[in-house]
Amino acid sequence: MRQILIFLAVTCFAQTPPAPNVEATIQKIVTDPKFKTATAFLDTDYDLFVRELIELTEIPAPPFKEKVRAQAYLEKLRKVGGLQDVEMDPEGNVMGLRKGTGNGPLLAVLAHLDTVFPEGTDVKVKRKGTRLEAPGVGDDTRGLALMLEVIRALDAAKFTTQSDILFVGNVGEEGEGDLRGAKYLLTKGKYQGRIKNFLSIDGGEPGPITNGGTGSKRYRVIFTGPGGHSYGAFGLVNPAFAMGNAIAKFAQLQVPSKPKTTFNVGVVKGGTSVNSIPFEVSMDVDMRSESKEELSKLVDSFHGLLFAAVEEENKARSTDQGKIKVEAKLIGDRAAGETSRTSPIVQTVAAVVKSFGLTPSYNISSTDSNVPMSLGIPAVTIGRGKGGRAHSLDEWVDIDKPSQILAAQVAIATFLALAGAN
Amino acid sequence: MRQILIFLAVTCFAQTPPAPNVEATIQKIVTDPKFKTATAFLDTDYDLFVRELIELTEIPAPPFKEKVRAQAYLEKLRKVGGLQDVEMDPEGNVMGLRKGTGNGPLLAVLAHLDTVFPEGTDVKVKRKGTRLEAPGVGDDTRGLALMLEVIRALDAAKFTTQSDILFVGNVGEEGEGDLRGAKYLLTKGKYQGRIKNFLSIDGGEPGPITNGGTGSKRYRVIFTGPGGHSYGAFGLVNPAFAMGNAIAKFAQLQVPSKPKTTFNVGVVKGGTSVNSIPFEVSMDVDMRSESKEELSKLVDSFHGLLFAAVEEENKARSTDQGKIKVEAKLIGDRAAGETSRTSPIVQTVAAVVKSFGLTPSYNISSTDSNVPMSLGIPAVTIGRGKGGRAHSLDEWVDIDKPSQILAAQVAIATFLALAGAN
Repeated sequence: MRQILIFLAVTCFAQTPPAPNVEATIQKIVTDPKFKTATAFLDTDYDLFVRELIELTEIPAPPFKEKVRAQAYLEKLRKVGGLQDVEMDPEGNVMGLRKGTGNGPLLAVLAHLDTVFPEGTDVKVKRKGTRLEAPGVGDDTRGLALMLEVIRALDAAKFTTQSDILFVGNVGEEGEGDLRGAKYLLTKGKYQGRIKNFLSIDGGEPGPITNGGTGSKRYRVIFTGPGGHSYGAFGLVNPAFAMGNAIAKFAQLQVPSKPKTTFNVGVVKGGTSVNSIPFEVSMDVDMRSESKEELSKLVDSFHGLLFAAVEEENKARSTDQGKIKVEAKLIGDRAAGETSRTSPIVQTVAAVVKSFGLTPSYNISSTDSNVPMSLGIPAVTIGRGKGGRAHSLDEWVDIDKPSQILAAQVAIATFLALAGAN
Repeated sequence: MRQILIFLAVTCFAQTPPAPNVEATIQKIVTDPKFKTATAFLDTDYDLFVRELIELTEIPAPPFKEKVRAQAYLEKLRKVGGLQDVEMDPEGNVMGLRKGTGNGPLLAVLAHLDTVFPEGTDVKVKRKGTRLEAPGVGDDTRGLALMLEVIRALDAAKFTTQSDILFVGNVGEEGEGDLRGAKYLLTKGKYQGRIKNFLSIDGGEPGPITNGGTGSKRYRVIFTGPGGHSYGAFGLVNPAFAMGNAIAKFAQLQVPSKPKTTFNVGVVKGGTSVNSIPFEVSMDVDMRSESKEELSKLVDSFHGLLFAAVEEENKARSTDQGKIKVEAKLIGDRAAGETSRTSPIVQTVAAVVKSFGLTPSYNISSTDSNVPMSLGIPAVTIGRGKGGRAHSLDEWVDIDKPSQILAAQVAIATFLALAGAN
């Protein structure tokens, strides 16, 4: 999950009282003796959950290179019990269907396989008590492990539902993946058109509910020039100088904190050797906003400063052998989206959260839920448990047992409510 | 060769008349009937020269990855005729000894195997009449091909010399190679201590003589920070912003054109994904000057601006999760050096150049000759023929036949004069 912003921590009930039947449904589920069985199962299953979380975290899954982890996860979906049609789709998503007893609307539950970390990143998990540290251990490997645990618990407690539930470990949520797994699932795969409710397990603790999708624009900005010898051709325009100037200008932009608007230079690369003027350098840039207008303003400023930086370099040095040129290739484009707080899916998740004594709050973020939101399919991203420093090398999760069981309980009750527990 | 600056195009005789015996020696060589035989051979050998130049150019030889080309060149040295002890040394240099008849001082002749271009660069040669275009075709593959042609011509004409001549295709001239091949040869290899004259075939046309070595300092500058999520952790310090700011400041430095002083950002890299604040980015920086003092001033300014850029980033954004730090690792350090114009080696090359009706001029550059110069061994870098755009993708050479034969004649006469033709 692209980490979340809690912009309004309110009890949802103050504004949007749920239909009484939602509350009643939840009460029926959490007081069902089977729910007690499931909870007891979670207690005995905890060690397996931890082992699987560590095991999966230590299988690298860079963007577009999720396959090894995907195959390991596919095996786990085959063994977990209670799933049919366990398979990998052509995009690389792995999934299995928990058949319902009726013909309720299909619920899809996703956790993503990919991490932001490139090949070669040390993904060995360091354990310090209930704290596990490793790149990707939270985002979203904990979601993957939680999903397996929940499937086992549903099976152990012999819960059945009206609707089928499709459990998916999906590819391509992060960065340049640009939500390709969720897009394939919803617009091209065999379940296309059948998914009527969508949950992504890719948030933090169980209270916050992500029902808004942040809009983002991402570019690979490529600066080219004639190149040349660092000494012999000194004085020619240098694309690294143009890019440095652009970054310096970019870093000085002012953006509002409300609506939250952000920008980043995430990757820089280019040049052939220390003693050559580069002929090409590039940077990968991420810009996001909760507001379409602010995002548009930011993107405009960005294009303006690219132009200015290139012009300045072409004036500062010789263009005898060629000018600096710049191209900004769009590599990610996510429309902002929302699932209304008055929608049954949001009301259901909020009622579940509240039934466990937690206070729901509402977030806007960029997750796989952006895809169904943009298609008008009700979607929410829910929590996987406590953690922090996502996308950094010191990413961590806290897997203390009571909190872990609570996160699983919230997930189970949510799935059952949305799929219609029998 | 790091391209050359012709800072004073004068006939050397005006300032430093050569000892009359140098001129007489050259006259004796170039009027020897064997020299006519050699010249006639060059005419018939031209097509092979061109084929070998293309063949060698199309074997990639990035810094530290010269092995495939080195092995191909080793085979050629084995087959070229007249060489003994043809071998690869532990550093990767390949060489063969042309035995002399006496005990004159050993002459080493080098052309370098490596190019500046990384793996994956398209090195296919494009031929347009007498113009060949490809990365590395000039620098220094033409030197390698010229050396083979000259060895064959010496053999065909049955020239013998007093001194042994060691012909070397050496590694590590470019960039981070930091002259490792020449350093090994002169300070560690089996010929260490025996080499009394040193010629590098790594210049342009035959007139200019490189008898001065540019001083350089090269750094890999590594900016680190806490990293984090581009959206969730927005507001934390970003090492890419600090580096961009440093580059922008660097690009604005003013340096003198006399003594020639230059600076470059040659390679930038770092970051893991578009949606992560990088935890590390780096840039490779090259600074050079003909003047030790100017180089020192430039390096001081450079360190100052790195510090300022980091400070500014640490003030501009939050350091709650950690500060930006910078480390400048020295990856290249070449002392300036010179072989005096009054030295026999420079006088000999100048007299040869003049004997072919060309005007010698004197350059300062950074080549393998920097190593012997720093050790007090007489060294000069001579030309390999006309070309341009070294270190850029559109590098080219002009191999028109009369000029090519002239470059080879200059090389042959120089080798014979320095090794004592019988």
